[in-house]
Amino acid sequence: MNGLMQDHPLLISQLIQFADRHHGTTEIVSRRVEGDIHRYTWSQCARRSRRVGNALDAEGLEFSDRVATLAWNGYRHLELYYGVSASGRVLHTINPRLHADQIAWIANHAEDQILCFDLSFLPLVQAVHASCTKVKKWIALCDSDALPADCGIPGLVSYEEWIAGHADVYAWPVFDENAASSMCYTSGTTGHPKAALYSHRSTVLHAYAAALPDAMGLSARDAVLPVVPMFHVNAWGIPYSAALAGCKLVLPGPALDGKSVHGLIEAEGVTFAAGVPTVWQMLLGHMQSNGLRFKTLTRTVIGGSACPPAMIRAFQEQYGVEVLHAWGMTEISPLGTVCALKNRHDALDDEARMSVRTKQGRALFGVDMKIVGGDESELPWDGIAAGDLFVRGPWVIREYFKAQGGDLLVRDAAGNAWFPTGDVATIDADGYLQITDRSKDVIKSGGEWISSIEIENIAIAHPGIAMAACIGVFHPKWDERPILVAVKKPGAAVSRDELLKFYEGKIANWQTPDDVLFVETIPIGATGKMLKASIREQLKDYRIPGLQTPR
Amino acid sequence: MNGLMQDHPLLISQLIQFADRHHGTTEIVSRRVEGDIHRYTWSQCARRSRRVGNALDAEGLEFSDRVATLAWNGYRHLELYYGVSASGRVLHTINPRLHADQIAWIANHAEDQILCFDLSFLPLVQAVHASCTKVKKWIALCDSDALPADCGIPGLVSYEEWIAGHADVYAWPVFDENAASSMCYTSGTTGHPKAALYSHRSTVLHAYAAALPDAMGLSARDAVLPVVPMFHVNAWGIPYSAALAGCKLVLPGPALDGKSVHGLIEAEGVTFAAGVPTVWQMLLGHMQSNGLRFKTLTRTVIGGSACPPAMIRAFQEQYGVEVLHAWGMTEISPLGTVCALKNRHDALDDEARMSVRTKQGRALFGVDMKIVGGDESELPWDGIAAGDLFVRGPWVIREYFKAQGGDLLVRDAAGNAWFPTGDVATIDADGYLQITDRSKDVIKSGGEWISSIEIENIAIAHPGIAMAACIGVFHPKWDERPILVAVKKPGAAVSRDELLKFYEGKIANWQTPDDVLFVETIPIGATGKMLKASIREQLKDYRIPGLQTPR
Repeated sequence: MNGLMQDHPLLISQLIQFADRHHGTTEIVSRRVEGDIHRYTWSQCARRSRRVGNALDAEGLEFSDRVATLAWNGYRHLELYYGVSASGRVLHTINPRLHADQIAWIANHAEDQILCFDLSFLPLVQAVHASCTKVKKWIALCDSDALPADCGIPGLVSYEEWIAGHADVYAWPVFDENAASSMCYTSGTTGHPKAALYSHRSTVLHAYAAALPDAMGLSARDAVLPVVPMFHVNAWGIPYSAALAGCKLVLPGPALDGKSVHGLIEAEGVTFAAGVPTVWQMLLGHMQSNGLRFKTLTRTVIGGSACPPAMIRAFQEQYGVEVLHAWGMTEISPLGTVCALKNRHDALDDEARMSVRTKQGRALFGVDMKIVGGDESELPWDGIAAGDLFVRGPWVIREYFKAQGGDLLVRDAAGNAWFPTGDVATIDADGYLQITDRSKDVIKSGGEWISSIEIENIAIAHPGIAMAACIGVFHPKWDERPILVAVKKPGAAVSRDELLKFYEGKIANWQTPDDVLFVETIPIGATGKMLKASIREQLKDYRIPGLQTPR
Repeated sequence: MNGLMQDHPLLISQLIQFADRHHGTTEIVSRRVEGDIHRYTWSQCARRSRRVGNALDAEGLEFSDRVATLAWNGYRHLELYYGVSASGRVLHTINPRLHADQIAWIANHAEDQILCFDLSFLPLVQAVHASCTKVKKWIALCDSDALPADCGIPGLVSYEEWIAGHADVYAWPVFDENAASSMCYTSGTTGHPKAALYSHRSTVLHAYAAALPDAMGLSARDAVLPVVPMFHVNAWGIPYSAALAGCKLVLPGPALDGKSVHGLIEAEGVTFAAGVPTVWQMLLGHMQSNGLRFKTLTRTVIGGSACPPAMIRAFQEQYGVEVLHAWGMTEISPLGTVCALKNRHDALDDEARMSVRTKQGRALFGVDMKIVGGDESELPWDGIAAGDLFVRGPWVIREYFKAQGGDLLVRDAAGNAWFPTGDVATIDADGYLQITDRSKDVIKSGGEWISSIEIENIAIAHPGIAMAACIGVFHPKWDERPILVAVKKPGAAVSRDELLKFYEGKIANWQTPDDVLFVETIPIGATGKMLKASIREQLKDYRIPGLQTPR
């Protein structure tokens, strides 16, 4: 027997309609590619999104056809989030930091029919447009008078011209909530990129969960700054959760340097910001150099890669900003866990409480997780046992677009299908996850596992170190040993031996790196993570000092 | 094209599994019918709920079969919430304040097969059990040694004996999220009671929305006291949202007097409490008489009927407790709106801000609402125009159980189907709803509408008045005129003329009641609301003073 409540599919159109009706005068502030500040409201965003719906109809785009973007966080991008998905098409956000060849490959694989881009990406579009064989319309996200002449893109139109001729009245269609709404490619370390294909259902459920008090805790009193890009996993779902909660939204455009971000936070009264550690490092560096403070910022969610404890301390202790360490993946829409403390943690001493904060936190309701050993048997939640992290839930991937990579899921004895994340983690008795490594980055020394992240976090805590990567290198006796590749802070004079001595008392001797190599830079990938595969490749001829055995 | 996220139905079993895994050691504290305090954890609750699942299997109950409760807020009731619904049966919570004949009618109409009751309701069960022809098993919610001998209920067993023989391992079944999960009858003013039948989907979506920061704002740091009964609309969904958020849950049993409730709040560190105005009046009265304070309570959601401004002021100004005025209905699972303020309200003066707080607030995301005039055309959101309130959404009723009352919904030109709530309301430009009346209680004087609630709230604000009901009486010229029926506070000496003078400057002269009748008590219905139909019946021979025209 079914219940007798109304049958309403969960649709992205409901988010923009809700923000329009209940938070119509709440502001959306964008730093534009042009450098100036643009401000309007949720109602104006809704109105222009409806123009996008009409414009897509006029282009003859069918249900589920793909519309791609190469764009920073800004109001026009936001209008495409709603106009494309809510009208039944699929928004394909492309990461502009990918190589041009990869972008062309992705656009063809996704069968993008329209591609909208910020003018800062014009050179990229000039390089790839001839290879993007399915794209029938190129749209520059600018005013008509800013449209570059003779730039070589056939039929290029400006976004403003494109939507101007269309009505701002549009009845968002009602359809199955399982329909695809948006997609995002992950750049795997091997093979072609693969796409996660989100649905309206997964997006709306994620928007509810992400706004909960123990996740981002978003209310209509918040001004939210997603520094995390809208071209990568929907900016952690913030464009959706902000509409659901009626937040003021502050979009930073391309200016992610410390000065620009700090200025925007202060000028717009930002209360909540979300970003990856590398961007926050720039913000903290700028603030420390200039003796700056925050007036309104009270909390930040940090994810994308593990947040070094030193960064958590800086935000909390120097600036009074609560750090919510989080974990997610493109394949998980992306939020899996957020580290909101429990009452019992209040009783801990500072050191013990910080060790909880460095964990990635508890699962959102909707995400079920477990860690498994080599035989796929579940490991205990004791905060010690480390195993492969498996997750399941309505916003967790089932398979990649066009079934790339085949069947992803691992079925347990009860018939439940789990997504193996590729992360190695512990989970403590309170359900707090700690990612100890990527399974491909973990260092296997003498049958024991060494967490590369733990080694890196200690190095980062040294006052002279700006960045550090720990990788495993061949060792004839122990199979692998850790070495550290590190970048010094400007002017710092730390030596190899000083840095190795810094590990004493912090971890076991056998876990301490065998060597330190100082370098000028560490390569960073398109999503802001260190490219360890590339570091390993650069060091393929490296030998641990004193060790004569050839590899 | 569908998205490629995993296909997981939203099920109530996931809530208890989540609380078990992530908040297993968090406490659930109950004041028992026996008077003592019982405490255990979410993990113990989960374990015993699984015993309930096995016990129901052993009874041969099929999918969707109904299990009824006549019970206060307590841990055994909570175990039935999860054990019954999560195993695929339907939990039917019966309001014990209904008349015995109505209870028997309801139990037969719902086809309840098992009825579980607190021992305090034994006399009621003795009165009705012979008439409840479908019930094949009666279970007393007590230890086996507390089971009354020779009480006349054939085959009566104690709950503890009933579950003791069953394993605490149970694989919750996976099924369609639209399956019915629980039901609650509303006592309409005319005809038989009608039941709202909730689904797993509607319940889980409501649990997400109710926990959001601008609704109840529940986190794992909260200790939550639902004074609102679990026998009425699932205690506003708190048993579900508390599991989703991992709250400590404090269940007050039958002791709803001011002293007991205050004692429990203080002893258990309650941070959030939910109740109806009549119960809160007892709490505030006790505190005022005894000079008491709250140590931990920070906020309370008040609904069920309009909260008098004087009560909001008392909580906020005397006790520093934020009042979240809310509106809902049995037919809406029940939450529709909650009055969380926006930043702009901070700039208002105290009086203006209080006038926002007296509104019932903004819709939760998921609830779409509108007000319509007599021709069902939508009225503006200007805070002035009052019309019939219509709502729609995934936790809003489509039809009553067994189609009682026929087709409930009203379709608009766009084909959207709305539930007409029977409430009359205004909505302001920020989307804040204010219930001005029940459509059947509104007083139509000379073609204008007078809100009975507004008249009552002013009376309640008078220091000498404890309770007040405003009803319309026949008038030959104006059709109807308002009169006030009022109960004085003990020892208060307020006169009719003083009370009428109290309205001067607060509302227009023509809205002021034509008369005041002081009475000893005002009749209250099973859900704590004043029974205006009964007051009207008692006053059917009343004439407005000086008016000779017979009715």
